[in-house]
Amino acid sequence: MSTAPVSRRSGGRAARHLARSNPLEDHLRPIRPGMSGGLYRPLSDDAIQRIHRGALDALWEIGLADPPESGIAAMTQAGAVLGADGRLRFPPSLVEDALAAANRDVILHGRDPIHDLDLSGNRVHYGTAGAAVHLVDIDSGDYRESTLQDLYDAARIADTLDNIHFLQRPMVARDIEDPREMDLNTLYACISGTKKHVGTSISEADFVQDAIEILHMAAGGEAAWRARPFASLSCCFVVPPMKFATESCQVMEACIRGGMPILLLSAGQAGATAPASIAGAILQAVAECLAGLVYVHSLAPGHPAIFGTWPFVSDLRTGAMSGGSGEQALLTSGCAQMHQFYGLPGGAAAGIADAKLPDMQAGWEQMCSNVMAGLSGLNMVYEAAGMHASLLGFCHESLILGDDIIGQALRCVRGIEVGEDDLSLDVMRATCLGGPGHYLGAGDTLGRMQRDYAYPALADRSSPKEWAEKGRPDLLANAKARKEAILATPARARLDPITAQAIRERFPIHLP
Amino acid sequence: MSTAPVSRRSGGRAARHLARSNPLEDHLRPIRPGMSGGLYRPLSDDAIQRIHRGALDALWEIGLADPPESGIAAMTQAGAVLGADGRLRFPPSLVEDALAAANRDVILHGRDPIHDLDLSGNRVHYGTAGAAVHLVDIDSGDYRESTLQDLYDAARIADTLDNIHFLQRPMVARDIEDPREMDLNTLYACISGTKKHVGTSISEADFVQDAIEILHMAAGGEAAWRARPFASLSCCFVVPPMKFATESCQVMEACIRGGMPILLLSAGQAGATAPASIAGAILQAVAECLAGLVYVHSLAPGHPAIFGTWPFVSDLRTGAMSGGSGEQALLTSGCAQMHQFYGLPGGAAAGIADAKLPDMQAGWEQMCSNVMAGLSGLNMVYEAAGMHASLLGFCHESLILGDDIIGQALRCVRGIEVGEDDLSLDVMRATCLGGPGHYLGAGDTLGRMQRDYAYPALADRSSPKEWAEKGRPDLLANAKARKEAILATPARARLDPITAQAIRERFPIHLP
Repeated sequence: MSTAPVSRRSGGRAARHLARSNPLEDHLRPIRPGMSGGLYRPLSDDAIQRIHRGALDALWEIGLADPPESGIAAMTQAGAVLGADGRLRFPPSLVEDALAAANRDVILHGRDPIHDLDLSGNRVHYGTAGAAVHLVDIDSGDYRESTLQDLYDAARIADTLDNIHFLQRPMVARDIEDPREMDLNTLYACISGTKKHVGTSISEADFVQDAIEILHMAAGGEAAWRARPFASLSCCFVVPPMKFATESCQVMEACIRGGMPILLLSAGQAGATAPASIAGAILQAVAECLAGLVYVHSLAPGHPAIFGTWPFVSDLRTGAMSGGSGEQALLTSGCAQMHQFYGLPGGAAAGIADAKLPDMQAGWEQMCSNVMAGLSGLNMVYEAAGMHASLLGFCHESLILGDDIIGQALRCVRGIEVGEDDLSLDVMRATCLGGPGHYLGAGDTLGRMQRDYAYPALADRSSPKEWAEKGRPDLLANAKARKEAILATPARARLDPITAQAIRERFPIHLP
Repeated sequence: MSTAPVSRRSGGRAARHLARSNPLEDHLRPIRPGMSGGLYRPLSDDAIQRIHRGALDALWEIGLADPPESGIAAMTQAGAVLGADGRLRFPPSLVEDALAAANRDVILHGRDPIHDLDLSGNRVHYGTAGAAVHLVDIDSGDYRESTLQDLYDAARIADTLDNIHFLQRPMVARDIEDPREMDLNTLYACISGTKKHVGTSISEADFVQDAIEILHMAAGGEAAWRARPFASLSCCFVVPPMKFATESCQVMEACIRGGMPILLLSAGQAGATAPASIAGAILQAVAECLAGLVYVHSLAPGHPAIFGTWPFVSDLRTGAMSGGSGEQALLTSGCAQMHQFYGLPGGAAAGIADAKLPDMQAGWEQMCSNVMAGLSGLNMVYEAAGMHASLLGFCHESLILGDDIIGQALRCVRGIEVGEDDLSLDVMRATCLGGPGHYLGAGDTLGRMQRDYAYPALADRSSPKEWAEKGRPDLLANAKARKEAILATPARARLDPITAQAIRERFPIHLP
């Protein structure tokens, strides 16, 4: 629409190029992990209260079925009531006790402290998650079974991407059949691929001791592990609607004893395992996570736990999951507000594509929920990159492109500064009244290009002419080239060789 | 994550299919034009006040250069002050008078009243706009010069898409060299391609009379036109920073006399023709549009005008425009709040891709600003579909896919209802306590699948297995097939033959 004045333009351009070539100090970077969101508020204060009171009602009137014996003992001791129908019910006062005692200062540690995540307030962090069973091959379009090597490669790629702040295990290593070996290898692949915080799951309580032993060895001993636990348990402790997942609860108990932070994960699916209404699905997830909070409280008050309301969406025409929908973005954003209401560190799912390949649909689906989750101030945005086919497929190239998507979302989370300097009246006066009549070479512009503007790594902003001259660069081909370059360089996050060797001698590690 | 129970599943599925096959009454449609946004508020109340006061300061201290003689006469009569430097300055009291007298009940009419747009409150509408000079061919990847036929085809396609609520001319008919013929043919192609509201631009005041005559003929006479003006003038009345576009102002004056609603369009580019800071670019756009409002007020108090703050973004590394950036989404959303502060109907740009083709980048870019614009409650989201290469290229297939993107954004705008029924406690009780233990066949689920869930037309949600069985449907190929199907059916919005013939006899219409 507007045409930029051309006078002095090349001079301004050279100055901008010079300015941009100087590396930025960290505090000047335009986007960072942990920027604060919260300016998008899909729920009114009254709506939040109604959902909260409804969740309390559900916990007292409906309660949860299938608690393990150990959980019954701990929670009834704390004040829960076991009904004749086998359901455990929670009086509001017990929930309020658990809320009062909950840990609100959770730091999720990285193996390198530079990657520590502070989950207070409305600070936003993005990372992977999931249990995809396929790796998506962008050249053939094939969905093939995902392997341990795929998982390790994902961890290595994520380690290099600035806007992927943590690595929760996104794929299942289907080439490892033994469940114990799968859990241990999954953990090993994640922590040797990245120094960022790792989330993983453990399928049986009997495996926990081995996993904790690997973590002790990687940390340099139990004390070091407990001081800075760099891996958390992703724990589907409920089977919605309103039933405990008996075995997962036992895993959780063992991990709490082992000092692992717990992601209390309630993954209902609206219209299938949760109410079809957005508010109802949020309410049920909140109720279930409050039950999880009581559970943690009854065992170890103040143990670090993440309020993991992860309601998903059904496409009600088929009953299949639709993680890429607008309804999903609303569910996740509404959950973020409930976390803030409780003042608890919270997480939910966003960034999922229903698209099978990293195409235009994948782009719009991944951005919609990622940016809304960030704007709503969600502490932990899980599943944020690489996820396709409603969580069934993971794609390395898509993970790399997700770094650009999340960078853009983070720029939106950062928002609009309106200090005196930002209003720019002085710059306007100097420009319009006897000045050059444009802002291209202004000192204010040069400064802001570094501090204020986020630049994508792979997204192409060239003109059609430049683009044609460059041979029409292809987004996916460029992502693939970057993947190959990352994987061709030595793994920078690997465990020191002595530790790695010790773990390999002690446990059946399949990674070459 | 969660696994839906399978018992009774096929029965529920059949019931859902049956329910979905009944057409919905209009008031039950899950998404509609004019849903109200506003729950995303990037600017605090204090920030809004600061920007407003800064804009008043800019109008009084800096003023605008290059007003036409006619504008000087009208605006100084109203209270503006012409300086010795040729700049017209506006005392705050004059701006406040113009704000007080502004038309707040603007309806943008369609040629069919079913397409009328009510711009009050935070009601959100999406449509095309722009002046792309290329049509994007998705098969070859070529950017070729856009033609009048391309424009007419775009209008015909837009006419069929539920989530494209208006058609502002998105492309330039480069096959028509004579400027007058180009303007008249552009108008004719738009109004004969769709019965939705049309926006267009006129390049010289001398052409306005002809354009108005076409509108009179299409409406069935001047009185009918003036009662329901179904075309508005997209008017770049300023050349940022802070200069009137002399000739465009003269066009505006003539169109006001002719009864056309005016889009007061200020299209600065942050870092080039507007300050580099987001807040500063918004402030300058607000100041310029307030000047435009004074201009309209001085000529015809209460004439329908849209507050068109359209600040764009520079990629400051190159000075080139980046319409697909997060900074763009913030600019547009911040502007929406300023419109609401003034209580004026407003518009801004969103949905622009920098990507040259409808690829993953295009998807995330188009969604980011479209959904944020909607959540911020922008009345008129211009450029919302089909736009590539930072406004240089328009793509018919992308326009069609944009209908899905905007549908999803509108679902997000609709938000989360939290009535008693939405909390779903009764459904939870019935499901969990002696019920089936899932929600698949519940009456609540069946009802909500129609009322609450938006379904995309082309986005694929099938499982990898179904997708492979369907032959891996390609998003762009499906969009192209839909385009061809639309263009193969008779144009449903065309003017009646007698009117069309009369216009063709009177004016050199090039459309076959």
